[in-house]
Amino acid sequence: MNPVFADLPVTVFETMSRLGREHGAINLGQGFPDDPGPDDVREVAAKALRDGYNQYPPMMGLPSLRAAVAEHYGRHQGLELDPDTEVMVTSGATEALAGAIFALIEPGDEVVLFEPMYDAYLPLVRRAGGIPRFVTLKPPYFRLEDEALAAAFSDRTRLVILNNPLNPSATVFGEAALSLLAGYCERFDAVALCDEVWEHVIFDGARHVPLMALPGMRERTIKVGSAGKIFSLTGWKVGFVMAAPELMRVLARAHQFLTFTTPPNLQEAAAYGLGKNDAYFTGMRAGLARSRDRLATGLSGLGFTVLPSAATYFVSIDIGAADDVAFCERLVRENGVAAIPVSAFYETGRVKNLVRFCFAKTDATLDAALERLSRQA
Amino acid sequence: MNPVFADLPVTVFETMSRLGREHGAINLGQGFPDDPGPDDVREVAAKALRDGYNQYPPMMGLPSLRAAVAEHYGRHQGLELDPDTEVMVTSGATEALAGAIFALIEPGDEVVLFEPMYDAYLPLVRRAGGIPRFVTLKPPYFRLEDEALAAAFSDRTRLVILNNPLNPSATVFGEAALSLLAGYCERFDAVALCDEVWEHVIFDGARHVPLMALPGMRERTIKVGSAGKIFSLTGWKVGFVMAAPELMRVLARAHQFLTFTTPPNLQEAAAYGLGKNDAYFTGMRAGLARSRDRLATGLSGLGFTVLPSAATYFVSIDIGAADDVAFCERLVRENGVAAIPVSAFYETGRVKNLVRFCFAKTDATLDAALERLSRQA
Ligand SMILES: CSCCC(=O)C(=O)O
Ligand SMILES: CSCCC(=O)C(=O)O
Repeated sequence: MNPVFADLPVTVFETMSRLGREHGAINLGQGFPDDPGPDDVREVAAKALRDGYNQYPPMMGLPSLRAAVAEHYGRHQGLELDPDTEVMVTSGATEALAGAIFALIEPGDEVVLFEPMYDAYLPLVRRAGGIPRFVTLKPPYFRLEDEALAAAFSDRTRLVILNNPLNPSATVFGEAALSLLAGYCERFDAVALCDEVWEHVIFDGARHVPLMALPGMRERTIKVGSAGKIFSLTGWKVGFVMAAPELMRVLARAHQFLTFTTPPNLQEAAAYGLGKNDAYFTGMRAGLARSRDRLATGLSGLGFTVLPSAATYFVSIDIGAADDVAFCERLVRENGVAAIPVSAFYETGRVKNLVRFCFAKTDATLDAALERLSRQA
Repeated sequence: MNPVFADLPVTVFETMSRLGREHGAINLGQGFPDDPGPDDVREVAAKALRDGYNQYPPMMGLPSLRAAVAEHYGRHQGLELDPDTEVMVTSGATEALAGAIFALIEPGDEVVLFEPMYDAYLPLVRRAGGIPRFVTLKPPYFRLEDEALAAAFSDRTRLVILNNPLNPSATVFGEAALSLLAGYCERFDAVALCDEVWEHVIFDGARHVPLMALPGMRERTIKVGSAGKIFSLTGWKVGFVMAAPELMRVLARAHQFLTFTTPPNLQEAAAYGLGKNDAYFTGMRAGLARSRDRLATGLSGLGFTVLPSAATYFVSIDIGAADDVAFCERLVRENGVAAIPVSAFYETGRVKNLVRFCFAKTDATLDAALERLSRQA
């Protein structure tokens, strides 16, 4: 057995969802919405399944989806992407990340990781033979600091993996932070793998800045997006990768041997969905912001210290001196609410005082969870 | 860039399909059927997409599909599988293979590969740090020989990757060959990764023997199956992995970081489909055998030497002294028929005299292809 994988625990999201099912809990742990996703997008997929083509699509993705991705990111983020050479469809953002990590790292290469980090990054980097260098971001602001970057980058740095907006902190790296990072990428000739799956789930009028748009980054950034996150259809597992042709060529090789291709019916529906007008995206954000406020206000009302949430489906509370894992275990067993201990996102600079809740739920779900939490608070 | 992936060409299947599109060719290259797949299975998926749950299913797969897999392989192959600990759903057989290879191999481990081999195996083994040891199987019988196995196995052998039935040779390893291999696996304490995606596509009353059913192999075999191949829905990318709990634990870790999960609607439909009665599977085989005979007879009639085809969607011709790659390039350009040069499946013992055709097509497609081939023969 390979020790990198053999020694790993089950992912915290799966573990908490399972514990939640066992205890009849309300699941505010794993990040998925109550919302069933847009009817019209689901209908396009259903029709394609029933009447359409169900054989292998082209390995890089349906031409219609690749064109829709280029159009979408042109319209929303000002990126100019050539659908034929700079866009690829993957079976979810996870496959996109795995493929990029296996394709770009040679054993011994250093990889800069920012913790808190999504729990797939580190095992993939290790399995690819990469040497992780951590930059620890601390609550409540989770800021990128020049000093920490200077300590992490070296001549052996090959790759930097950034998640922006950042899960679980629900913070957004703006132009200044991204510029700072871009400077290091240029100076050390590193490639940036930017997991931007939360790019549309951003609140209060803030604007997502794709790292790829920063000066000097167009040729050295791999941008990853997700139809599941954009359309609240997390089970679909349709991801997009955007990168300059030279990078894309090797990313495609990894993709062809990890999954080869992605169901064409879901691709067709994603292509349709990406063309939706601004009102859809504005409405989605407004609905989620309302849910965020409902949960945050409720948690404050129960006496919890609530951190700001500028993006993602998540809001965290600061539990002070308590242990976040023990806290979450008690919460699911005794209160019947599943949440995620934020320490699961740290490898070195353990932050043990934050607990993350998913607010992408109906009012009824959020109110019921708050009622259950009140029994303890 | 990692040289294992950076230096690879585009897969031959994709290349030939693209060439085929460019030349308006009939595509008998990449293995996918003309048949649109069973209406009822597609309808279940469409309904689940429209009305059902579209969020993350459990990481190991929908309980209903895992139960259906256990039931199916019990009924068809006499295997006893515990759905909770011995069955996992993946985003296609390719992901299952990639995950197993990354999970089981440590850098420096030796891996026994049988050529002809599916083109994903070798790059994945290399990227995982494995050292390939080739056993070359030669036309027309592609037999497993004791001597070749003895030369390939060593104390460093960790994994053996077998495809049975074997693509592209369309041959089936029976009990005697499998026993021989099982003996080596036991003697050298190796794990067998058995890609059995063609298990149902087997003709003339032959019976597929799962390697896992051989004495001593239950605990050391990973069996991979594919709903796409079983239901002629190659774009669906729903695969199954079966293995003893100890192996499954580490396979699950790889899966959770490669794709995490697979669309629940397609899983639900696969669960439904696996429960179909014997008549469905018998009918599918009979239909494909008829198509095989139609193409094989036609090719013989044109003067080609046709190899037997006992399984898969494929039949090969022996082109003698000609070069298979040049032959296929001429075929697609001049005759408008895409086929696959079998040398693409060899790494060391280059066999250059075989060309593979996919017969899983309508009579009209096959007849049109034969007509086009006759212009050259
Ligand atoms: C793949 S399960 C995790 C989903 C998610 O993004 C989260 O909960 O953080
Ligand atoms: C993933 S494309 C290849 C399909 C196939 O099994 C074949 O053509 O051999």
